[in-house]
Amino acid sequence: MTKTTFSDACANLRPIDTAGAGTQATMLSDGLTKPRGSLGRLEALGAQLSAIARRCPPPVPEPVMVCVFAGDHGVVDEGVTPWPKEVTAQMVANFCAGGAAINVLARHAGADVVVVDVGVATPVPADAPNLLRRNVRPGTANLATGPAMSLEEAAAALDVGVEVAARCVADGAKLLVTGDMGIGNTTPSAALIAALTGHEAGSVTGRGTGIDETRLAIKTQAVARAVSRLHPGTPALEVLAEVGGLEIAALAGFIVSGAAAEVPVVVDGVIAAAAALMAAAFAPDVTGYLIAGHRSSEPGATVALEHLGLEPVVDLRLRLGEGTGAVLAVPTVQAAAKILREMATFDSAGVTDKDATSS
Amino acid sequence: MTKTTFSDACANLRPIDTAGAGTQATMLSDGLTKPRGSLGRLEALGAQLSAIARRCPPPVPEPVMVCVFAGDHGVVDEGVTPWPKEVTAQMVANFCAGGAAINVLARHAGADVVVVDVGVATPVPADAPNLLRRNVRPGTANLATGPAMSLEEAAAALDVGVEVAARCVADGAKLLVTGDMGIGNTTPSAALIAALTGHEAGSVTGRGTGIDETRLAIKTQAVARAVSRLHPGTPALEVLAEVGGLEIAALAGFIVSGAAAEVPVVVDGVIAAAAALMAAAFAPDVTGYLIAGHRSSEPGATVALEHLGLEPVVDLRLRLGEGTGAVLAVPTVQAAAKILREMATFDSAGVTDKDATSS
Repeated sequence: MTKTTFSDACANLRPIDTAGAGTQATMLSDGLTKPRGSLGRLEALGAQLSAIARRCPPPVPEPVMVCVFAGDHGVVDEGVTPWPKEVTAQMVANFCAGGAAINVLARHAGADVVVVDVGVATPVPADAPNLLRRNVRPGTANLATGPAMSLEEAAAALDVGVEVAARCVADGAKLLVTGDMGIGNTTPSAALIAALTGHEAGSVTGRGTGIDETRLAIKTQAVARAVSRLHPGTPALEVLAEVGGLEIAALAGFIVSGAAAEVPVVVDGVIAAAAALMAAAFAPDVTGYLIAGHRSSEPGATVALEHLGLEPVVDLRLRLGEGTGAVLAVPTVQAAAKILREMATFDSAGVTDKDATSS
Repeated sequence: MTKTTFSDACANLRPIDTAGAGTQATMLSDGLTKPRGSLGRLEALGAQLSAIARRCPPPVPEPVMVCVFAGDHGVVDEGVTPWPKEVTAQMVANFCAGGAAINVLARHAGADVVVVDVGVATPVPADAPNLLRRNVRPGTANLATGPAMSLEEAAAALDVGVEVAARCVADGAKLLVTGDMGIGNTTPSAALIAALTGHEAGSVTGRGTGIDETRLAIKTQAVARAVSRLHPGTPALEVLAEVGGLEIAALAGFIVSGAAAEVPVVVDGVIAAAAALMAAAFAPDVTGYLIAGHRSSEPGATVALEHLGLEPVVDLRLRLGEGTGAVLAVPTVQAAAKILREMATFDSAGVTDKDATSS
């Protein structure tokens, strides 16, 4: 199979079929044995799944694959987090061994986990099973003081994501879930969200896994310094290279690649939201394929999701990342398809429909 | 087996073990490979499940049974809903045939559905499979003009719920989910919530499945008239008989009976919330066993849940009832137990814990 690049994926992307299969889903839903609209967000999700699959009712989106992209961040040197950088590699080993939260929650949802080293700084043990080794460089440079990576490295990381999504789709995935690991990665995420939405650093920078006021001030300052090097009209790839992260770039490629294959993508928290914004900057039609898994505690996540017009499925005050919030949304996403596929209609069940009998 | 009455269930109820197993769960959670507290509500649910099971980690709560209690309401004669009363019996037949939303969502969650006729007015077809026929009376009287039922009928409906929960527990259920069906049943629910929380009719009465301003005014007036016959200190059973419903009474019995058996109970929307308030009026310790499945669109649901100190798991703007919101929360509830059972600790995974290495 020829290797697909990020540019190919962007070019292959077409808008979802809202007017056709999406509208059919709404009409179908209105005839099911329930008051119209009473299943709330489930009905909207069902219409979106139909529009993505271009048929109604949509197939149930399974099998599910969660792809966790890992990378390190030079900005950790500024003191934006109390966690040592080595934890990224330690957690990659934990993912590969099946002991992290994402492993537990993915198993519970019947999903497989794929772990990808896009840019971990500390060597990952050679015996880590099932790890895709695609290290573009061992962590980014410090984005507070200069470009996080080169344009070539950013492009290479985008291509890693494209390859991983294509591999999952070839393996049968019908629903993709974004995951991430990278000590310090809420900092580049905040910078990307500030750069791509025009918000101030202070309004999109949060406490990540739980930092104190001092570190928050350092972090906000690092984001502001990074973003100050950009201007409206800076090309998307340059924004990514200047203030992004390797795993965030890979996630953006993964998202566009999944969408180009017409597979819905459930995005996790603030890292994934930044990647989704980045993906939409390259290929605006990607947003139709995205389902916001959950509302992260991180303020930048809400800003990014609003900018993309996405509403989260789950709101459980999670702030872990890894894909945990997104994978918790999977049963609800699948339920939306089953509602359209399995519910009886007023006619078939012999139930009186008020809207057919009264005004 | 001797028949357990509602009074027995109330007497058998003991508080959950928050100080013991609940605290152990929090300590266990703090040692797992994630920043402390980063799994948000999942961590609180895990502690609650431990406190209910009186051990840590808690067992995964399965099998799951959804019990849908159905009844009719004389107050429909006031014009509080555009749906004809016959729809209650038609939907009961739909539940028994497996075609309703609750059937689809329960199958998806791996849960069984039990359907109970506590007070349907229209005869349910004799061939409806798997229907528990426990009809106390064919619908309540109009609560706007007088008592909905007698004290004896209210007590009998409570006992139906007790019996059904005990039957489910005997059949192996480790998680119970409340469901309901009854055209017009948001009206008695609003009346119970007003009576038991002291809120005005106007602040707890909503649009149910979607009524217009005219019907909302009629409905609010009906609730206000019903509640005006009560006073602070009216005994709980009298409140229930005066302004309640047969399926709501059965749900209250079901909730207390499940809790007395130390089985967590996921409560659905406004009907279940009213039943939970009623249950807590009889047996305050019941609230420890309750998990609020979702935030209904109905304003009374939020008032009732706040009064009980419960925070919903799911918020998808559902307003269907049947148990749909509660059963959508089931995978998340089970996930909370699995996190405590299956995640690696910092020690076991060799991951550096910032709180053990830095201030």
